[in-house]
Amino acid sequence: MEFAKRLDNVTGSAIRAIFALIGQPGMISFAGGNPAPESFPSEDIAQIAADLLRKNGSTILQYGGTPGIGSLKNTVLEMAAQRGIRASLDEVIITSGATQGIGLAAKVLCNPDDVILAESPTFLGALQTFYAYEAKVVGVDMDEDGMVVDALEEKIIRHRPKFVYTIPTFQNPSGRTMPMKRRQKLLEVCKRHGVLVLEDDPYCDLRYSGDPVPPIKSLDDNGHVIYLLSFSKIISPGLRVGAAIADKRIIEKYNICKQGEDLHTANLSQEIVNAYMHSGKIEGHIQSICADYRIKRDAMLDKLAEFPKGVRYTRPDGGLFIWVTLPESMNALTLFKQCVDAGVAYVPGTHFYPEGGHENTLRLNFSMASLEQIDKGMDILKSVIEKNLQ
Amino acid sequence: MEFAKRLDNVTGSAIRAIFALIGQPGMISFAGGNPAPESFPSEDIAQIAADLLRKNGSTILQYGGTPGIGSLKNTVLEMAAQRGIRASLDEVIITSGATQGIGLAAKVLCNPDDVILAESPTFLGALQTFYAYEAKVVGVDMDEDGMVVDALEEKIIRHRPKFVYTIPTFQNPSGRTMPMKRRQKLLEVCKRHGVLVLEDDPYCDLRYSGDPVPPIKSLDDNGHVIYLLSFSKIISPGLRVGAAIADKRIIEKYNICKQGEDLHTANLSQEIVNAYMHSGKIEGHIQSICADYRIKRDAMLDKLAEFPKGVRYTRPDGGLFIWVTLPESMNALTLFKQCVDAGVAYVPGTHFYPEGGHENTLRLNFSMASLEQIDKGMDILKSVIEKNLQ
Repeated sequence: MEFAKRLDNVTGSAIRAIFALIGQPGMISFAGGNPAPESFPSEDIAQIAADLLRKNGSTILQYGGTPGIGSLKNTVLEMAAQRGIRASLDEVIITSGATQGIGLAAKVLCNPDDVILAESPTFLGALQTFYAYEAKVVGVDMDEDGMVVDALEEKIIRHRPKFVYTIPTFQNPSGRTMPMKRRQKLLEVCKRHGVLVLEDDPYCDLRYSGDPVPPIKSLDDNGHVIYLLSFSKIISPGLRVGAAIADKRIIEKYNICKQGEDLHTANLSQEIVNAYMHSGKIEGHIQSICADYRIKRDAMLDKLAEFPKGVRYTRPDGGLFIWVTLPESMNALTLFKQCVDAGVAYVPGTHFYPEGGHENTLRLNFSMASLEQIDKGMDILKSVIEKNLQ
Repeated sequence: MEFAKRLDNVTGSAIRAIFALIGQPGMISFAGGNPAPESFPSEDIAQIAADLLRKNGSTILQYGGTPGIGSLKNTVLEMAAQRGIRASLDEVIITSGATQGIGLAAKVLCNPDDVILAESPTFLGALQTFYAYEAKVVGVDMDEDGMVVDALEEKIIRHRPKFVYTIPTFQNPSGRTMPMKRRQKLLEVCKRHGVLVLEDDPYCDLRYSGDPVPPIKSLDDNGHVIYLLSFSKIISPGLRVGAAIADKRIIEKYNICKQGEDLHTANLSQEIVNAYMHSGKIEGHIQSICADYRIKRDAMLDKLAEFPKGVRYTRPDGGLFIWVTLPESMNALTLFKQCVDAGVAYVPGTHFYPEGGHENTLRLNFSMASLEQIDKGMDILKSVIEKNLQ
């Protein structure tokens, strides 16, 4: 059986092996990127779903349009406006999670061997998705303020990329946030060289400290940025609802390509998200999630403060992840096996680097585990690291 | 702005122009492929959705696995077994509508310029989807019994296709059903030449007359057929739930590629479909849809019997469509404008042909319109045809 060439570089096997291990009963997992299960407004959504279907079932259960439900598109524009983004209805499309918005960028823009620049490290799911369109991903170095723009410009000149993929706010996996000045500089550089920006912003509302930084898209006056937002982290990932905002010519192509993927995002998911956004409960809900995650983040950071000297880590103002750098001599892949045997899991950092390497890094998620699990799991991680340092 | 080469052949503009016209108020539409809006079990689904979310919200609203929910995969296997198909859990994946299963076949199997053979005419959505992967679609002639297998073998030898795409039961757009003997012969030919079959079977349960014919997949003893089923026509298209059953190596690749499209099909959609299939109501629901559509089909066929001599049409035993062939001298594209002005719409048949041409054909849908609309709309269509015959 002969498969398409585009699959040659997409295996995902390392990560699937990790998640198979993590599924073991009793395992404390800092590996996923899942919201806390207790954070979902199940009762409210049960009520909303039943009401919607009783009032409007014959429309919700029928085929819908590929661009998405008009009322939800308007809601997306209102959210975007709150973030400083001005756009019109023909510049937005509803996607089946931000994941689909990432994949469609590559599908719409990239021919085989085209280059995409991305933070190094970057979101693993995006890497796999880009590879499925035979794009090449080249990493751009980061510092504490995110992607280094001088390094970016050098790589733009060298690789003539189709677009720059960035998660400027509470980046996955590093937790870092790019300050406003650098966002401006990044956009200037990309505009000067005629390179599009794919700005992925799923964590924006999950801020626990510091002041909000407007998205790069808010600085965009000529359709240079494709902006992806998601309802996964503030309402539910299981509903699979996100949106893309971009130049209308790009949205038109997204629309054409989405038709052949899933025709449209499930109407019920779209209607639930829209109704919940207008239920008067979303602000309180986000506050409550943030309060919970802030405590968890602080608990994990407190634990990390007790780790051996030489273990460095980021102190994110929001999002779901802390990025840990072990002493150069240590290997987070080797450590991973020992940790799993001892009952705690993370994702080895090397998988997030387009070029691999960096085996002394790892990603910790603090949203999914309980405070007790964070306490216990971090003790285990610490003792495994200490043992390996001796 | 420079888009990927794969978009060069995917415009969908002709069809979008048609559907824009159809959206006009008061238009009687025989153009879509939508279930009747009154056929949806909205109240039952409202109850099911609320119950599911109350009992199991923290799982349903969380991320799910790409292959789909285990209980629904089992339900799919039970449905398949009733159709004579034997498969195991690792040979099934839940898709976001059968559309995703069609697109993933091309994504997983086709390199640019690879050939796919398909009935001529065939499902327009599949054509657009295949073109997005730069596959070439070559049409195979049909007769009243569906794809002509001798013509198929000749084209297999000439084009060495990656797979043969077929809708053997109540085909879209022709309404034709392939008899058992020809299904056996088709599979034999494909096996002999090492060509896979993509069997799309969304209309299977919508039979109004004649005896069921088992799917080609039921004859498949070595993973030669990718079988697609859908819940769109028997429960709801708006929920976007279908499934693919195939050799587990193919399902594995579907899984990898689906990850980068939508990560997984919305959990709530999957759970609703699964619960409704086990609610004890599905059999009665399908019987009621079939009774309704049978009356509508018969009403449309009765009207067609009064059309001028020289207008030929299929008499489908099920599904949603009747295929009309006008006298050679007539053009269904020209007629379309006159019909729309007079308040009735269909899809000109030429759009369903991979090679175009056949301007004297058109597709009629009988599920969506009411009996009154069928009565009135068919009278309009008849008078427009008569006027053009003079």
